[in-house]
Amino acid sequence: MSRRRLLGTASAAGAGGLVLGAAGGAWGHATAQDEPPTALTSLGSTGVAFHGTHQAGIVTPAQAHGHLVAFDLVSGAGRRQAAALLRRWSDAARRMMAGEPPSGGERDTGIALDAGPSSLTVTFGFGRTFFTRTGMKKELPRQLAPLPDFSADALDKERSDGDLWVQIGADDALVAFHALRALQREAAGAARVRWQMSGFNRSPGATDRPRTVRNLMGQVDGSNNPKTTDDDFAERVFVPSSGEPSWMAGGSFVVQRRIRMLLDSWDEHALGEQERVIGRRKSDGAPLSGGHEHTAPDLDKRGKDGLPVIAADAHVRVAAPETNGGAAMLRRSFSFHDGFGDGGAPDAGLLFLAWQADPLRGFVPVQRKLDRGDALSDFLRHEASGLFAVPGGPARGEYVGQRLLEG
Amino acid sequence: MSRRRLLGTASAAGAGGLVLGAAGGAWGHATAQDEPPTALTSLGSTGVAFHGTHQAGIVTPAQAHGHLVAFDLVSGAGRRQAAALLRRWSDAARRMMAGEPPSGGERDTGIALDAGPSSLTVTFGFGRTFFTRTGMKKELPRQLAPLPDFSADALDKERSDGDLWVQIGADDALVAFHALRALQREAAGAARVRWQMSGFNRSPGATDRPRTVRNLMGQVDGSNNPKTTDDDFAERVFVPSSGEPSWMAGGSFVVQRRIRMLLDSWDEHALGEQERVIGRRKSDGAPLSGGHEHTAPDLDKRGKDGLPVIAADAHVRVAAPETNGGAAMLRRSFSFHDGFGDGGAPDAGLLFLAWQADPLRGFVPVQRKLDRGDALSDFLRHEASGLFAVPGGPARGEYVGQRLLEG
Ligand code: HEM
Ligand code: HEM
Repeated sequence: MSRRRLLGTASAAGAGGLVLGAAGGAWGHATAQDEPPTALTSLGSTGVAFHGTHQAGIVTPAQAHGHLVAFDLVSGAGRRQAAALLRRWSDAARRMMAGEPPSGGERDTGIALDAGPSSLTVTFGFGRTFFTRTGMKKELPRQLAPLPDFSADALDKERSDGDLWVQIGADDALVAFHALRALQREAAGAARVRWQMSGFNRSPGATDRPRTVRNLMGQVDGSNNPKTTDDDFAERVFVPSSGEPSWMAGGSFVVQRRIRMLLDSWDEHALGEQERVIGRRKSDGAPLSGGHEHTAPDLDKRGKDGLPVIAADAHVRVAAPETNGGAAMLRRSFSFHDGFGDGGAPDAGLLFLAWQADPLRGFVPVQRKLDRGDALSDFLRHEASGLFAVPGGPARGEYVGQRLLEG
Repeated sequence: MSRRRLLGTASAAGAGGLVLGAAGGAWGHATAQDEPPTALTSLGSTGVAFHGTHQAGIVTPAQAHGHLVAFDLVSGAGRRQAAALLRRWSDAARRMMAGEPPSGGERDTGIALDAGPSSLTVTFGFGRTFFTRTGMKKELPRQLAPLPDFSADALDKERSDGDLWVQIGADDALVAFHALRALQREAAGAARVRWQMSGFNRSPGATDRPRTVRNLMGQVDGSNNPKTTDDDFAERVFVPSSGEPSWMAGGSFVVQRRIRMLLDSWDEHALGEQERVIGRRKSDGAPLSGGHEHTAPDLDKRGKDGLPVIAADAHVRVAAPETNGGAAMLRRSFSFHDGFGDGGAPDAGLLFLAWQADPLRGFVPVQRKLDRGDALSDFLRHEASGLFAVPGGPARGEYVGQRLLEG
């Protein structure tokens, strides 16, 4: 079963669940109309719940459009201003995720008028600098220790880190842009945009089977993600209710990496070479050891030549939990394409997002190993990096981060 | 009736028509599958015909994703290389628009695997410099005379003009990117990317009624476009079969302007002020003179104060054919958003595309007037410009531009 379906099922049943047929596009129509309203299709009418144990946008199926934004508090803004901002942001997110304008309709930009919630999710996180800047060092989670340097890093500091992190996802580009602008407006006077990146995934309905998404190298990407039905899923991805710090109960730590793909070089390689680099077949994502997309890779299998069928430096071998002391993460990325650079090479790749209960048992050990011996690394360049504490989902009447800011 | 529906109807009947249920995502599945194929939804399975009187992508409903790209011939490439390139490009476009890989599957990037054609269109045009560079000055259409300078222009020459122009549209971002890369590969050795811009429109299915698209100012944009059912539609938009130059029969001239919206300033204005600037209501696009979106604006109507209800400098008054000696064009734009500039202002706006039989009876006189007295101009900055001759659609066995290049 594909990740998309799995996550859909799981989230419909639990926190951050899909709310089919939510109110949508319901404002601004108090005027004469020549066109009878037609039913929203499931794309527009799908709403995701704002309240729950976990924030939306983690196990929610990845949407067609995403914005990732970091904000820095303005000088003079401290804990109190941050609390007020998170309250405003939560209110706006809750309304927009239900297909309503963020606040008093008059001041709304109107960009999302007519559209339903279109699976909008807004997810909020805190960066390491947030705690120093607000004098809340005592609350700084040990999991926010700076990521180690990796040999292949070519990081742009101006597009890395940040006090506050916001992930916006939606299946409609105007709904996503509307949310971005609404949140930027709410931030005025308290925080300003540090960096912003936009990404995308396949549109719902474009594929002929509910296959895991593809990335811009053409690979099926996400097949061997932890599944919400796995016994250890919650343990791997979410901070337990007994965990530390206590305000992070139900939360998760997200690592974001802007990973440029060196596509001109990649595309020069023949299909067989590309498949050896990953250890999976490009057509359907099946492991080279056989079976179909969701067959477990057999890392011990050898070919007639006596060599492992999945090469020693194949990405799936080097990254696999089995070879990393069980380290695992939930990958939920967006592709990006920001034009072409000199010589016509696309500035494109993956806005890689990894979710885990603890980066030291997720991204860090795996990236350490990839950095040393992964065949895929030759085709990648890590250009920006961030690590953020994403608290649990808000209860009704609560805002995101309230347990931190008023704890 | 909305533009989207109108165009859909018209194009289904004529050239560049929609081919529902076209073959899609049919390659690369010759392998064991654990998932039974499910039917493509209409989003993925919608194919647009490559052959016809007109190229696709002009009356085709505007897709959710667009790429606009200019290529310059490499030094040494002339008419012969250009003809070979247009032949390769046409072949690739035809295949991809039918949901097939561009050529020998092995070398394909695979990015569009699994997806159907997703309403992909590829449209090719020639810029003024093409004719000088290939020694074909005799074929240069008089309609390609350089656009006049406008007072509000702040044009970036590096993102303007170009020998060859390609418009890619699709309802899936990966299908669009796949086509972009495939065409770039086919160009290798003959032409290289001069500039490239990406844009978007509402996703099909996101709205609760088949309303005309909105732009990033939140306005319904496109309401008063010429309709394919209008008696003078073809005359306004397409070069007649008896027209000059003869290789342009069935073709159209496209003006592209990258128009930055000064959104921070725009968003500060109250709804009523915004509506006066355009002369239409924001909620549903109805003219301020009354009625609904598709009621003709009454430019003579006066309010109790004796002043015209649609202000003297309202955009719809200044731009209307009635006040421009009948000058008209078909607007089929994409919104763009390329991040935030200094101070947090979004680099966002409209990739404005105007289609007409003759720019001197379309874009030029209207922009001249807007440039002088349009209330909207205060919120806009024209940052890049292009004008291209887009020949008629290819007959079966023909490539786009063949009548020019082998004429
Ligand atoms: C642009 C960069 C990357 C690309 C294109 C990429 C691509 C892929 C592909 C195609 C797969 C196989 C299918 C799947 O299970 O998802 C995979 C698996 C995986 N990747 Fe990556 N990856 C990238 C970066 C990373 C990074 C930075 C990490 C973590 C540090 C990572 C961790 C993993 C893990 C844990 C798996 C699953 C291995 C298994 O258990 O089978 N990947 N990746
Ligand atoms: C970002 C820039 C622009 C924006 C946001 C914009 C917005 C609008 C809006 C909201 C309308 C009313 C609805 C409609 O009929 O589509 C309109 C109408 C129109 N616009 Fe623009 N416009 C822009 C630039 C231009 C330019 C550069 C031209 C041509 C030089 C143009 C020509 C027209 C025309 C011909 C109409 C129809 C007027 C009528 O017959 O009622 N617009 N525009």
